Order: sequence, then structure tokens, then C-alpha cells
Amino acid sequence: MHERIVEVEPWAVTATRLDGSAIRLLESLTSTANGHFGMRGNFEEGYGGDTHPGTYVAGVWFPDRTRVGWWKNGYPEYFGKVINATNVIAIDLAVDGEKVDLHTGSFNDFRMRLDLRNGLLTRTFDYAVGTARVRVSFERFLSIATPELCLQRVRVTALTDGVAVTATPRLDGDVHNLDSNYNERFWQETARATGAVDLLSLRTVENPFGTPRFTVTTGMRATATGLEAAEVIDQPWQVGRSFAGTLAAGTTAEISKTTALVTTRDIDFPAHAEAVASLLEAADGASFDDHLAAHSARWEERWRRCEVRIDGDAEAQQGIAFNLFHLLSTYYGEDTRLNIGPKGFTGEKYGGATYWDTEAYLVPLYLAVAAPEVAEGLLTYRHRQLPEAQHNARQQGLAGALYPMVTFTGVECHNEWEITFEEIHRNGAIAFAIFNHARYTGDRRYLEGPGLEVLVEISRFWADRVHFSERRGQWMLHGVTGPNEYENNVNNNWYTNYIAAWVLRFTSETLAAVGAGRAEELTVTPDEQARWDEIASGMYLPHDDELGINVQHDTFLDKDLRPVAELPAEQRPLNQKWSWDRILRSPYIKQADVLQGMYLFEEDFTPEELRRNFDFYEPLTVHESSLSPSIHSVIAARIGQPDKAVDLYRRTARLDLDNYNNDTEDGLHITSMSGSWLAIVQGFAGMRVDDQGLSLRPFCPDGWDGYSFTVGIRGSVVGVRVTRGGTELSLIDGVPLTVRVDGEPVEVGPLEASVC
Amino acid sequence: MHERIVEVEPWAVTATRLDGSAIRLLESLTSTANGHFGMRGNFEEGYGGDTHPGTYVAGVWFPDRTRVGWWKNGYPEYFGKVINATNVIAIDLAVDGEKVDLHTGSFNDFRMRLDLRNGLLTRTFDYAVGTARVRVSFERFLSIATPELCLQRVRVTALTDGVAVTATPRLDGDVHNLDSNYNERFWQETARATGAVDLLSLRTVENPFGTPRFTVTTGMRATATGLEAAEVIDQPWQVGRSFAGTLAAGTTAEISKTTALVTTRDIDFPAHAEAVASLLEAADGASFDDHLAAHSARWEERWRRCEVRIDGDAEAQQGIAFNLFHLLSTYYGEDTRLNIGPKGFTGEKYGGATYWDTEAYLVPLYLAVAAPEVAEGLLTYRHRQLPEAQHNARQQGLAGALYPMVTFTGVECHNEWEITFEEIHRNGAIAFAIFNHARYTGDRRYLEGPGLEVLVEISRFWADRVHFSERRGQWMLHGVTGPNEYENNVNNNWYTNYIAAWVLRFTSETLAAVGAGRAEELTVTPDEQARWDEIASGMYLPHDDELGINVQHDTFLDKDLRPVAELPAEQRPLNQKWSWDRILRSPYIKQADVLQGMYLFEEDFTPEELRRNFDFYEPLTVHESSLSPSIHSVIAARIGQPDKAVDLYRRTARLDLDNYNNDTEDGLHITSMSGSWLAIVQGFAGMRVDDQGLSLRPFCPDGWDGYSFTVGIRGSVVGVRVTRGGTELSLIDGVPLTVRVDGEPVEVGPLEASVC
Repeated sequence: MHERIVEVEPWAVTATRLDGSAIRLLESLTSTANGHFGMRGNFEEGYGGDTHPGTYVAGVWFPDRTRVGWWKNGYPEYFGKVINATNVIAIDLAVDGEKVDLHTGSFNDFRMRLDLRNGLLTRTFDYAVGTARVRVSFERFLSIATPELCLQRVRVTALTDGVAVTATPRLDGDVHNLDSNYNERFWQETARATGAVDLLSLRTVENPFGTPRFTVTTGMRATATGLEAAEVIDQPWQVGRSFAGTLAAGTTAEISKTTALVTTRDIDFPAHAEAVASLLEAADGASFDDHLAAHSARWEERWRRCEVRIDGDAEAQQGIAFNLFHLLSTYYGEDTRLNIGPKGFTGEKYGGATYWDTEAYLVPLYLAVAAPEVAEGLLTYRHRQLPEAQHNARQQGLAGALYPMVTFTGVECHNEWEITFEEIHRNGAIAFAIFNHARYTGDRRYLEGPGLEVLVEISRFWADRVHFSERRGQWMLHGVTGPNEYENNVNNNWYTNYIAAWVLRFTSETLAAVGAGRAEELTVTPDEQARWDEIASGMYLPHDDELGINVQHDTFLDKDLRPVAELPAEQRPLNQKWSWDRILRSPYIKQADVLQGMYLFEEDFTPEELRRNFDFYEPLTVHESSLSPSIHSVIAARIGQPDKAVDLYRRTARLDLDNYNNDTEDGLHITSMSGSWLAIVQGFAGMRVDDQGLSLRPFCPDGWDGYSFTVGIRGSVVGVRVTRGGTELSLIDGVPLTVRVDGEPVEVGPLEASVC
Repeated sequence: MHERIVEVEPWAVTATRLDGSAIRLLESLTSTANGHFGMRGNFEEGYGGDTHPGTYVAGVWFPDRTRVGWWKNGYPEYFGKVINATNVIAIDLAVDGEKVDLHTGSFNDFRMRLDLRNGLLTRTFDYAVGTARVRVSFERFLSIATPELCLQRVRVTALTDGVAVTATPRLDGDVHNLDSNYNERFWQETARATGAVDLLSLRTVENPFGTPRFTVTTGMRATATGLEAAEVIDQPWQVGRSFAGTLAAGTTAEISKTTALVTTRDIDFPAHAEAVASLLEAADGASFDDHLAAHSARWEERWRRCEVRIDGDAEAQQGIAFNLFHLLSTYYGEDTRLNIGPKGFTGEKYGGATYWDTEAYLVPLYLAVAAPEVAEGLLTYRHRQLPEAQHNARQQGLAGALYPMVTFTGVECHNEWEITFEEIHRNGAIAFAIFNHARYTGDRRYLEGPGLEVLVEISRFWADRVHFSERRGQWMLHGVTGPNEYENNVNNNWYTNYIAAWVLRFTSETLAAVGAGRAEELTVTPDEQARWDEIASGMYLPHDDELGINVQHDTFLDKDLRPVAELPAEQRPLNQKWSWDRILRSPYIKQADVLQGMYLFEEDFTPEELRRNFDFYEPLTVHESSLSPSIHSVIAARIGQPDKAVDLYRRTARLDLDNYNNDTEDGLHITSMSGSWLAIVQGFAGMRVDDQGLSLRPFCPDGWDGYSFTVGIRGSVVGVRVTRGGTELSLIDGVPLTVRVDGEPVEVGPLEASVC
């Protein structure tokens, strides 16, 4: 644990102390979202100290200029930024004429709590101005029943007599991006109105890159009991209204605010005011509590499909609940134009909304914990962006499709050549996800339909990107960056070569399976297919016979191969202590590279091969990517090193809750949040899915009494409970099925649990 | 020839046509400088069309912000920019009340001429406004007799009667940089006065990097005959005065303007006004023609030491004269705080004032064509910056000194990791220049004094930068970029490994030669020296026995090795037509890499080895660096391929005059201007200098009647004339000496030429 500012409890995040130097961290941890929009745990009344205000709207972005002096052909022209949008939660408070501000004011009994079952965020405190004292309570949530809505309730109770209270619910468009290259304002105000609805429309400013502009309209209705309507606020970037009154001791004023948010992604601008008014009109029919009940019921449906329980380890339980809550808040498959950005709706660092993390780490989780459409939505996202991926390949002078490293639209917008041009293994993960979806669901329709279009274009890319080395008589991939980003521009990265060959083989096999008509449709000639087969079988795969390992890339074994354990502690993490030069030349591995490939293609290797490679590479791995420990944990479990598996699991489960990497203040590590789930389900429980269906090879970590999880597969939802005594399986939903446990088939039917 | 806008003539650059689309190119070609300041051939009266105004002051720069999204430890924080300073040449003209502007006005008989013997720039044209016609002549030069001074003379002759003429000499500080990341203004005005001296002081604005700020003060005096003093200009960023009158047909008004420029590099700001006044006072004692005569006499002294004449090829003659003129205008060793930037005083692209080009390409020329102090000044520059070079090494976590790729102060300010961290062979060239200076001059004082301090620190860097590969049992350098910048981040670049080993060996030998006392002074222990010897002798040098060549780097031979000749013409130049990705993966070489090393260390290899390597690498070389053809030309001459040598020479001699790379409008390729000299002197004449002194192995290219050049060596200045009939040597200055010509000693004494 590096820094823990919240309590350990299974289903909530609670802070009872307000540390002025950790506000940003608290804001990240208490972020909320509903797939349509989201925001950090910013305070409704504002905060005068160090804070990172952030409200983000799904699919709304801006192409930030990224001029560097040494532009080269093929470099992307802009960097797509998640942008901070209108602050919809603002409710200023004043007590006896003085603005309530927890940075400068006098308060006690502070408590902030995010309920992980339903995303309700509450904050309470006593506040004093002179002799006047009040108790304040804020509540808010972003509805998943009506995703355009943010619902808020504030209660102010006078603890002394005759306290003058003013509450000012507002919409505040005067926002800036923390992450911006030129400190430009990304928005202009395009409409503003007050009345039955207080309304503010902001439009992204013009950009020179021809990317779409967005208008976001927010409209609010606010009511109060115990206070009287006072002023209306209608000024540039601001609308709202204030309520004021004097409270007798023991009386409570209550302010309700409902905000609706729509964008030109869904509704043309001229219809925005009307759309917002209708949403608010409809919302008016129900109370805050009614809305909360409908919203919470939806959350319970979600949890029923995905809940993980750990008995006897409250920290671990909180970790997995926290991670699943934030993942499902970020994406639940409603909109196939969206994907899962590295910070979700919790920050703006890294930009873009899509990394290869989605296919590598998240699709496996969504396949198991949500309806099949949810994972398929993520695949569809890539299919929609096939033309842009073709554009990216063309930018490099190559055939086929190159999916981007970072994007909003499918067009690459990362601006380092060693990533943009070279970390092309991402194209492999995107193909693998299509295969994995078919294998997991047993349903080949997506694979043979849109999936095959994507596979063919990715194959065309690989077939053009390789070259034939006369000297070696094999096909090669020079100039790549593997998953280990602590090396750049290497030749014949084993992982990249392996997955490229696999894609070519798998595409060819799939084409063969669907028949020549489909190949013709996709304009794949027999010659082209034959060339793919030739490259796949003639691909150079660096291997060291002496060590019996796959070699990370051509010259990796020439390095000074001292294990991480020999590094002085004060030199870690390397990415903060070492120059980039030393890191690149070192043997130290940021995240699974060869092992990432052996993880994906486990069935191609013997456990002994897996063990040899793990024993060689893991000691050289610094796990400085949040994506690293989980994959190693799964492999450690597979090769019979449970202690190592548990040790690595601990590094992933509470990464943000305990601020392990000391950067959670910038936002949560959304895309690595599946790591703890992978470690438990694929690691400890050894879950695999192949053509024969689900199998398990479970163990219960020392110190745990047991754990249980729920997975959906092929029309069934299965509950798995692993304890020291054994494994229990139950059918939660759907049709009976056979599960192999430690190699033995177990029938899982309705009514009672199968114990094995 | 790609685009020739000037006449072919031996000692001048003359344009007789003004092409509005080629103004920037003309401005570059007619740049003038005197080591202290310089400027492009901008028009005194201004130009309303496309132009690149540029006035640059030696050693005055600004650290431009270079924020990129993906900063890493060790990246430089800013990029040092050459900055456009006060326009000192401005003299507005009006005829009958209309501003003279060659973009919009009516003119004929245009002629602009830069005299390459003395840098006098003249421009004449007839100009009409309505029925009024005048003949205008501008003259200017930057004095090398008094380098603070710019002298100007304008004559306006009325060709019709009663022409109203106004001339307004000004100093104009309202300037911007064409090359600026954030479009910021780099200057603020700090003083302004009019009177006996019209004075303007600009100071560079504050910067967040703690680099020095500069104040540049310019003061002018202007007088006129034939016109009366009219207005005084005194407004923000501007001072000056106008003269007006009405001229009768055939009468001439003459305006003289003298400007003095001083900076806080030399004089504290409070003394600037006084210094400028004194300079102008002193200048007043002589006429424009007197000043020009003194200045021209200095230039003739320079030419006497360095003149190259080519008989029978006017284009070649103009090329070499042009290159030598601009080089000597840029640097003549007066100030050891200065060096030679890639664009000199002719543009602002690339930034910085010092590249390794100086040591690799320019020191050999200055050793031969100027007094020994001039080349030594360039070495001293590096010695002065030793602390900053140590700082650079420390930024990478390494011992010793790493000289920068780009700098003003010695601190690295290039912002690409693949260059900053990796193109470290520059450290080798800097050491080699110290060796070469001693070998050339026969004088070991600099080497054994300050030179040895630099060598020791560079050796310490190499000794820390290498690693030992257990697997190979040899020392290695991973993660470097060789001279071929069309590959990045390669392992064991032969050139880098070779020169690193050489530096370690040479430093150790030099320490041994000077005795233990000096080693102790430099805190070099016997152990440290032994380690250098061990690395030097155990360095891995990739070599292919089958091909009999040194291998560019570890995996170069795995590439798809198709020669440049097979590339379609429309794909050249690669750097404009291909993505950076394709370039990096290709076998195509930007400039000499293995061959650069074999050129520097020619004596270590047999001519047969040299030939094998040349025949392997040259066909893969695209020569897309202006530094490439010359080195290849010298080697081709050495291995008996004179036609190839001449062919490659042609690509270097008129690079700017014929705008070969289509980028001369940004400024001249100053640092590659020695290429034509190297090709003639080291290539065609085969000049070498070793411990026995000077040797030649000359031939006369087909199509030339002959060529002659002058070299200084060890107290002698020798004239060399090569014709089809043989070689003539004459002693121009200094002591008699023996020169080996084709291996035979020839005595060169006073009075008569030695023919051989």
C-alpha cells in the first residue's frame, strides 16, 4: 500500500478525513459515470484548493495541436483529447453570506462515500461561519436508467438559530482542460437561456484538421423547500438560480437539481432545447428517491451477472468491487460508437478513447460478465472504423488496415513514431479478439460476417509489412515495438511475429471454412491467400535452444541480463528514476511481452515451455505497466506457482485504491481494472474456454476463506464458488451445461449446486 | 540542376530577373555576414510579397518551449532557436508619395549582385510611379574590419523631372520568428532614443528555463545629399528619420546609413548607448568607399590563404567560391564562444548553433585554409562547454561528458530521443578533431593541454555507456543512431563502436605519452585506464567474413538489400515520398556511416577493404544529407573510381546555387559547404596529412583544364596546381617543406614552383 485515504469495506469507498494535498486522489476514487457521461468526485460547492475539475461526455473530443519541430511523413497531425465539459453539478452554498469552501472554511464530521453497488455519491459535513453552524449533505448519481440525467439532492440543516443560507444550483461552462498543449479553450458558448429550464449549449471551437465539432447542451431544473427563489443567473458561460432564506435551528432546507445532457452525436443542435425540456419534464414525474430506486435496480441486474465475492479478505473484496464498478460505469455496450479510454470518465491524461487494452484485457472480461452484445459492441466499434484503419496503413505506405494506438475516430492520433508506426502488434490483438469472441460464445456469426472483413484487411497489412530476408530465408518484421514499451524499434519481436503469423493463418483458415464465395466477396484471390500461408509458415520466430525460450527480439540476449532483484530499491520505479536511454538499453521489461503471447496462445505450448519462459522473463520484469501483474499472475497460477500468482495479484487489485503508482490523482487506470478479475478467474480458478466449453483448475489462495464469481457462457450463467474444501458450481440462469473441473466433467444444472 | 535563378560567373552571384515565387531563395543566396551578425538578402525598402526577413546576431538565441505529450526522463526541456533580430537595413523609399515595392510596383532593369570577393551586395532597378521614373541603387556590406558595423548607401537618380523622393532609414524591431513553436514574440523593447544616434535596444523576453537573456542594441546615423531632413520616427519598436525632396531629371540623391550593433554578450547594457555612439563617431571619419576598401583588403587576405580556382568549368568555380565565401563569412575564429550553425546567419531552421558537422566536416577545412587559431577556436569552444557536456551525460545517468547534438551553451536542446540519447557518435568526432588538429599542425600543445581534459571525459562517457555481453564475451553499444539517420536505435553500429574504441585507445595512449603526473591531475587511475584499454581491445565490431565488409549494425544484413538504382525515380527523395516507418526499415542510407568511419581511419584499412565496403554501401546510399556526397567522393577518388568521384562532387558543389534539395529558401546549408572543398582537395588532389607531413595523389577531372588551391600547414602556405600535364607546387608563405606526390618526395621552396 502506498497511500490509502479511504476505509477498507467491501462495497463502498468512504473517506472520513479531508486531506488538502490528496483532493485530486479522492476526486479520482469517487468518480461516477453512466456510459453517456461522467465526472470526477468534484465538490458541488467548489473547492478553493488544489483540485482537478473534470466532467467528460462520451464521444466528445477535440484534436489538440501537437506541433513538434521534427515532423516526418506519416506522423499524425493532432492528438485527440478527452475534454472537460460543462460542470453540471455546481451548487454554490453560502452561510451567513460567506461562501462554503472546505479549503478555507471551518468544518468537521466530514464524510464522503461512493456506494459501489449503485454509484450513489454522498458527502456530509458540519460547517461553521462565526457562531452559525449547519449540517450539509450532498447526494448525486448519474442514472443508468435514463443516461442523460444527473440527479442531485442537497440538504442543509441549521444547527444554530437564524442561519442565513443561500444555495445556487448552476451550470458552469467556464471550464478548461488540464491536459492541453497550448492552453487553448476548446469550447465556445452557442446558446444560453433561463426559465422553466436553465440551459447552456457549448460547441467545440473550430479546428484545422477537419474533425467533427460537437455541441453539448445541458439543461437543469432546480427546486427548493425551506428556501425562497432569489436571483436568476444568466451571464456568459453560466446559467442557474439561487434560493435563499433564514433557517431556524433544527430545520432543513432541501434543494433538488436535475440536469439533462444531450449532444450533437445523438440529436441535431436545433432540437437540443426541446430534447432537454422533454427529458426534464419526464424526470419531474418522479422523486429523487424514485429515480435512485430505478437506477439501483438496473445496477443489481448488472451485479447479478458479474459479482465477485472474496471471503476472508476485505481489502481484496473492495478491490475487485471497485474495479468492476468503474468498468461497468464506463462501458456497458449501449453505444457501439464508443470504447473504453485509459482513464474512462475519471481524467483526461493520455487522450484518446481507445487503446489495444480493450481487446487484450477487457474483451475477455466483458465476454464473461455481461450479455454477449456488450463484448460484440466492442468488436463492432473496430469494424465501423475499418476505413480509418485502412487510412492509417496508407499513411505508412502499406496495404490493408492498421488499427490505431490511440484514437477517437479510428484515425491514429498518437504522436510518437516508435508507438504509432511500430507498436503494430495491436493489430494482432484486435484480430485475436474476433477469434476469442467466436471461441467463447461458440457463435461464429460475427467472425464470419464483419469479423472476417477486419481479419482480411489486417492480414493484408501484415503481408505488406513483413519482408523476406534472403540471408535467413525467412519472413521478418523489422522496426517494431512490442508490448514491452521499455524497448523501441526492435527487430523480430517474438510476440509481434507470432501473432502476425497467427492472424495470417487464422484468416486463411476462416476463409477456407466459409467457402470461396466469401473470399471472392472480400476480393481475396487464391494467390493472396497462398502468400499469407507462406508467410505464416515461414515467419522467423527468435528462439534460443540453449535456454529453451522464445527470445523477445533479435538481440535481446546480448543485453546485460541482471535480474530486477539486483536493482537498488531507490532506483524504482525505473520510469521515474532512470533516463529513457538507460531504460531502453536495459533488459528490464515493462509488461508481459513474450509471455503475453504465450498467455494468448497457451494451447500452443507445453506447461514446461511456459515455465521456462516465465522463469526467464518474469525476474527481468518491473511490472511498471498497470497491465503487467495480472497476466503474470494468470501464468504463475497455470505453472503451479500459486504464491507468485497471489503476490502478483495483490499488485493489480488495489492499484488505484492504494494509489500504487502514485498517479491516481490524474484519474483511474480504467483499462487495467480487469486485471484483478483475470487473476482471480483465469488465474486462481483457472478458467478457460475452448471448443468443448468451460473448464476450471481452481485453487484457493492462502489467507482467503474462499471466493465466488459468476460467468456467463453460451446461454448459461454459472456461479462458481471455490473454498479450501472444494469447488461449487451452480446454474444461475439459462441452460444446463458441462464444466470440466481439473479435467473432470461436472454437470451443472438448475436447482442445486454441483460440488466437486 | 534543379532551379537556377542566378548567372554562372566565377566570383559573384547575380540575378537579373525578379521571380516573385523565388524571393526567399534569392534572399538565401545573397545572405551576408561577418561573424558578428548577418542577414538574408532582404530588400532595404521592404517587400510586400512572400519574403523571409531575417537578421541574426551571433550567440543570441532563445529557448523555445517544446512541450510534447510524452515527455520522458532525460529529454531536453527546450529547443534553442536562432532568433530574428532588429532589421538594421530598412530604408523605405517613396516616389511621388507612393511606397516603392517591387512586389506591386512597376520596375525594370533589375539587377542584384553579391560580390563573392568581399560580400558587397548591390541592387539596382528603374522604378516608375505614373510618369515619374527613378533609378535606384542600394549597396551594403557588413564590415569585417569593424564587425559591429553595417554600411549602406542608396542612390536615387531622377530620370524624369520634378520627382518627389522620400527616403526613410530606420531600425525596425517589430520582428517575428518564422520558426517558433508557439508563435510567441521573443523580444521586448527596453530602450529607444533619437538624436545624434537613433537607437533601439531589444531584450529577449523572460524564459522559464533559466537560460541567459540578451539585449541587442542597434544605433544608426543617416545622412543625405540632395534631400532635406524631414520627420523623425520614434515609436514603439521603431526609430529612424526621413529625408525628402524633389529631384530634377538627371540629379541624384544619396543616402548613407551606418548602423552599429552591440550585445550584452560583450558589453553590459548600461554602456550600450555609449558604445554605439563611439562606434558611429569613429565610423564617421571615413566614407562608405573607405570603409569598403578596408573591408575588402581583409577579404583579400583571407582569399590569399584559401582560394580555389578551377579552370575550364565556370559552374564548378562559382560553386567553390560561393561555398568558401559563406563559410568564412560565418566563422573566422574571432570568438571562441561561437561555432557554426547549420544555416549560419542565413535562416533559422534547425535551431542551435553547433552540430557535430563542425568537427566532422569543417575543422579539416579550417585547418588548411586559415591560421591555426581559427580551427583551434572551434576546439576551444568544446573545451569551454565541458561542464555542460558533463551535465548532459548526467541527464542520461552516465559518467563523463556527452557533447550535445544541438546547442548554444553546451546543454543539449534537441528534442528527439533517437537523436539526443542515441546519436552519440558525435562524441567521437569531437575527440577525433582534437587528434586531427595535433596531427595536422604537428603541434601537440592543445591536445596535451585542454584537449586531453575533453578526451578523458569523453572516454569516461564511453566506458560507462558500453555494456559487456556475457553471451558474446565482448563490449557492446546498444541503442544508438549512427551517422545514417535513416535508422534509429540500432545495436552495435560499427561506426560508433569503432570510434568509441578508438577514443579510449587514443586517450590512453596520449595519457601514457604525457606521463603519470597529467593522469593524476585528471584523476585517471591506472585501473580506469586499464579498463579503457580492455574495452577498446574487446569492443565488438560487426563484420561479415563472407562479404568481407564491416556491418553497419547487428541486423543490417537481414534487410531487403535492394540497391537504390531499383527504386522508381518518383519515390525519391525518400524523405519526402516515404513514411518514416518505411525509411527506417529500408536498407537505404542517408549519408556515409560505415564509410564515414573508414574515411576517418583510412590508414587502418587496405584500399581493397575500402573498395569492398564502398561497393557494398554506396549503391544503398541515397545521399539525402548534404553531408553525404563529399565523403563518398573522397573515397571514390581514393579507390580509383575518378568518374564516380566527379559525379558525387557535382552533387555537393552547387547544392545551394542550384537549389538541389529544394529547400535553400530556408537558408544555406552552411555546414555542408566544405564538401566541395573536401572533394577537390582530399578527393581529386588526394591530400592527406600524417606525421610525415603533407602528401598528394592528384588527378584532374575530365572536362577541367586544371585546378589550384592553397593550403596552410605547419608554418607554410603551399599553392597546389593540378593540370592534365602534372602538378605544380609553390610556396606562397612560410618555410620550405617536403610534400609527397604520388609517394615521391618533392621539395617546395621559395621563388619558383616545383613541377612534378
